[in-house]
Amino acid sequence: MKIKSKNDDLEKLRIDIRDVTSDIIFQVKKRMKLSEEIGEIKKRLNIDVQDERVEQDVRKAVLKLSDKIGIDPDFSRRLLNILLMESIRLQQKKQRENELGQNPEKRETHLDIFRKAKQLEDSGKEIIHMEVGEPDFAPPKNVKKALVRAFDLGQYHYTETRGISKLCEAIAKKVGNSVAKEQVIITPGARFAVFATITSLLKAGDEMVTIEPAWPAYRECADFVGARTKVIDTTIKSKWTPDIKDLEATINDNTKMLVLNYPNNPTGKVLNDKTLLKVLSLARDRGIYLLSDEVYSDYAFNGFKSVLEYQYEKAITISSFSKAYAMTGFRIGYAIANREILAKIAKVQATAMTSVAEPIQYSALAALRVEPKQYAKYIKERLNFVTDKLQRIGLTFVYPDGAMYVFPELQNHPSVGDDITLINKLLRAGVAIAPGSGFGANYRDFVRISACQPRRLLEKGLHILSNALTSGE
Amino acid sequence: MKIKSKNDDLEKLRIDIRDVTSDIIFQVKKRMKLSEEIGEIKKRLNIDVQDERVEQDVRKAVLKLSDKIGIDPDFSRRLLNILLMESIRLQQKKQRENELGQNPEKRETHLDIFRKAKQLEDSGKEIIHMEVGEPDFAPPKNVKKALVRAFDLGQYHYTETRGISKLCEAIAKKVGNSVAKEQVIITPGARFAVFATITSLLKAGDEMVTIEPAWPAYRECADFVGARTKVIDTTIKSKWTPDIKDLEATINDNTKMLVLNYPNNPTGKVLNDKTLLKVLSLARDRGIYLLSDEVYSDYAFNGFKSVLEYQYEKAITISSFSKAYAMTGFRIGYAIANREILAKIAKVQATAMTSVAEPIQYSALAALRVEPKQYAKYIKERLNFVTDKLQRIGLTFVYPDGAMYVFPELQNHPSVGDDITLINKLLRAGVAIAPGSGFGANYRDFVRISACQPRRLLEKGLHILSNALTSGE
Repeated sequence: MKIKSKNDDLEKLRIDIRDVTSDIIFQVKKRMKLSEEIGEIKKRLNIDVQDERVEQDVRKAVLKLSDKIGIDPDFSRRLLNILLMESIRLQQKKQRENELGQNPEKRETHLDIFRKAKQLEDSGKEIIHMEVGEPDFAPPKNVKKALVRAFDLGQYHYTETRGISKLCEAIAKKVGNSVAKEQVIITPGARFAVFATITSLLKAGDEMVTIEPAWPAYRECADFVGARTKVIDTTIKSKWTPDIKDLEATINDNTKMLVLNYPNNPTGKVLNDKTLLKVLSLARDRGIYLLSDEVYSDYAFNGFKSVLEYQYEKAITISSFSKAYAMTGFRIGYAIANREILAKIAKVQATAMTSVAEPIQYSALAALRVEPKQYAKYIKERLNFVTDKLQRIGLTFVYPDGAMYVFPELQNHPSVGDDITLINKLLRAGVAIAPGSGFGANYRDFVRISACQPRRLLEKGLHILSNALTSGE
Repeated sequence: MKIKSKNDDLEKLRIDIRDVTSDIIFQVKKRMKLSEEIGEIKKRLNIDVQDERVEQDVRKAVLKLSDKIGIDPDFSRRLLNILLMESIRLQQKKQRENELGQNPEKRETHLDIFRKAKQLEDSGKEIIHMEVGEPDFAPPKNVKKALVRAFDLGQYHYTETRGISKLCEAIAKKVGNSVAKEQVIITPGARFAVFATITSLLKAGDEMVTIEPAWPAYRECADFVGARTKVIDTTIKSKWTPDIKDLEATINDNTKMLVLNYPNNPTGKVLNDKTLLKVLSLARDRGIYLLSDEVYSDYAFNGFKSVLEYQYEKAITISSFSKAYAMTGFRIGYAIANREILAKIAKVQATAMTSVAEPIQYSALAALRVEPKQYAKYIKERLNFVTDKLQRIGLTFVYPDGAMYVFPELQNHPSVGDDITLINKLLRAGVAIAPGSGFGANYRDFVRISACQPRRLLEKGLHILSNALTSGE
């Protein structure tokens, strides 16, 4: 009898909950209508759909109310993010209706050009590859020995998810700064370290800030979990130095992570001490994660400092064997972070792939015994060669402090059109370079030229570029 | 003047939208209170928190209403999923308050035991590894040659994300069933193929159905994107055959994927034609994805059929070189699907890691030239040995149709307690086996014994097991 009445109560409560759910849906519809009306007006006034100030106001109001009436802040943040994202989607739809089918989101990256170049090669055309950052020299010789030895010793089994202990230890030793081996995880390339970092620390609706021009992978990983990428632009005028005030204004209560990449891909920029210190103290003040992608650190020609030197609790430092040891196709890199963050990254890796191939880990361990200075010398010589030529062609650029690229502006050559037009023309003529727009929406007037080819090929490639710029089509 | 009034309109609309947002939050709070009251009653009545029928009713009502008043169904599904998940969270919290800190979610898997065993080994203890499915024999000899050759030929560069063309082609040829090479993607192990499949096809709140006992990776990947795993159990009584009616009842409008894994880990079960056909036609009827993990297909002793033979549009077939060619530590596997699905899987791989290490891809290509029948013969002999011994010990099990495991029940030996108690006892005595509970909440009375060791070690391990079962502590 008592159970029966409890069951009746349950049934009544279920009807109530269904009614409240319907009410919520009606209110949401009302919200969407208002949102569409706002979109309509924004379209007429030509105002950007994403309005930072307004959004922050709504966010603050909702969190305050949630706190007051006792709703879990994580839950209400997720709920609000879904509502806000739907608003933006509807308003963008309104705006696009006027734009005759243009899709401003679709960008071609250096990898798209690489794919096109490969297809042209398959059809018999010769292409000079100045679009990808892949050293043409061989890995250290002892890498081969290590590979064979690993096979002979039967080192082809599952390893700890974080990687074999010896390799973690050797990396900890190499990077210094009191890093313990327990703070290191071996990943299949720096890209997976970036992926695991971003997907383990960000949730849908969270915001991440990148400094453009930037490697597109950061944004792609954020998109994967539904996190939003906010961007601050840097300019050739300021020698690609980020404006700290810009950064301050872009980081808000919803920002969870800032991404740095110095020496920078594509500009070759290295931040000076003063700027890096300001960025670090900003991250510290706001308590946000700092992902520092340092894969080009062995190709730094001017006073580079690793973020590791600043001992920031919430920093994740990422590097790889791809560039430093010319081991791109071995797919091995690593992340360094405090134990708590590292456990989260390791969980993603355990879920996605167990561990990195054991023979590859032993190859990397062998590579670490070599000082890769020689490679940096080669690349520096080639960058000198490329920049000399570009200067003669009359293109504007900032001489790179590091990495393996030059990022010149096309503005003196308006006849060529934007980056993609030029690049397609160059592909037909036998050279591949990377479009600036792949590194950020505002870099259509730039291209990235990679110095990873022997001088003979670089010369030929730049000659084709020069011709394309001076002759009409 | 006109712009000013437009701006005023905008301001007014923004105030409206803020008010509506607050209303939504208040209603959500009301919903949560009702949900907590329901949780309270369920606790007293001892009813499961997740109530399939009630949830489906709410889902249908909301989708109907959304359709009627013009809300994007994807959006309202996401919104509802967030509300439902929060309800379940709150109700589970209520139930746990009574359970004295017990956490029913926490399970130890075979990998946790592997880790414990490794730690014991590090401290000097000898352990016989019967907990992991890692063949002890060496990969084919030509794998080493291929590795060296790849290095000599400079094959250590980025490859196409989907893998080198020759390898995709060789796999397409091996699997037959009119698979084209464009339907194949090479991944770092079958685990990543599973990860990329689940994370590219499922969204938060979507449901996936697994048949337990099951490899825990499927659930872990679903958890990663916030998808929900529904389970049907199979029993030793029915010889681990899934009940089709159970399956039918568990697949609902929100179900997006069904996971099969035959030959099965941990039971060794292979489905017969008739059952497989029924499962396929059920998937077809409901239009859901079918992930078929066939990594043990080369270790099938009784009439195994690949899902590929059924030409189902929405099937994703996954396999690997780990088991078939004893190449676990090379981390290489693959997925096969129609072009549209494959593009989605490839996008995840491009985002997460570019491609699989090129020398490893060439090793796999070499392995494919060998017929791995010999390995299956070894494992079959060992399984015979293990099952003979287990029979003598008096444990109940179904003789495996394939794979490399036996999954016996402990019920005749109640003195040992559950799987974890027994396993910890065995670890102390020098043998590691896998707990049944790692493969599903209802398999605490089972353990998984892997036959991947030479007979001498298997004998020693089983002797320790026998002693532990017959002697008191």
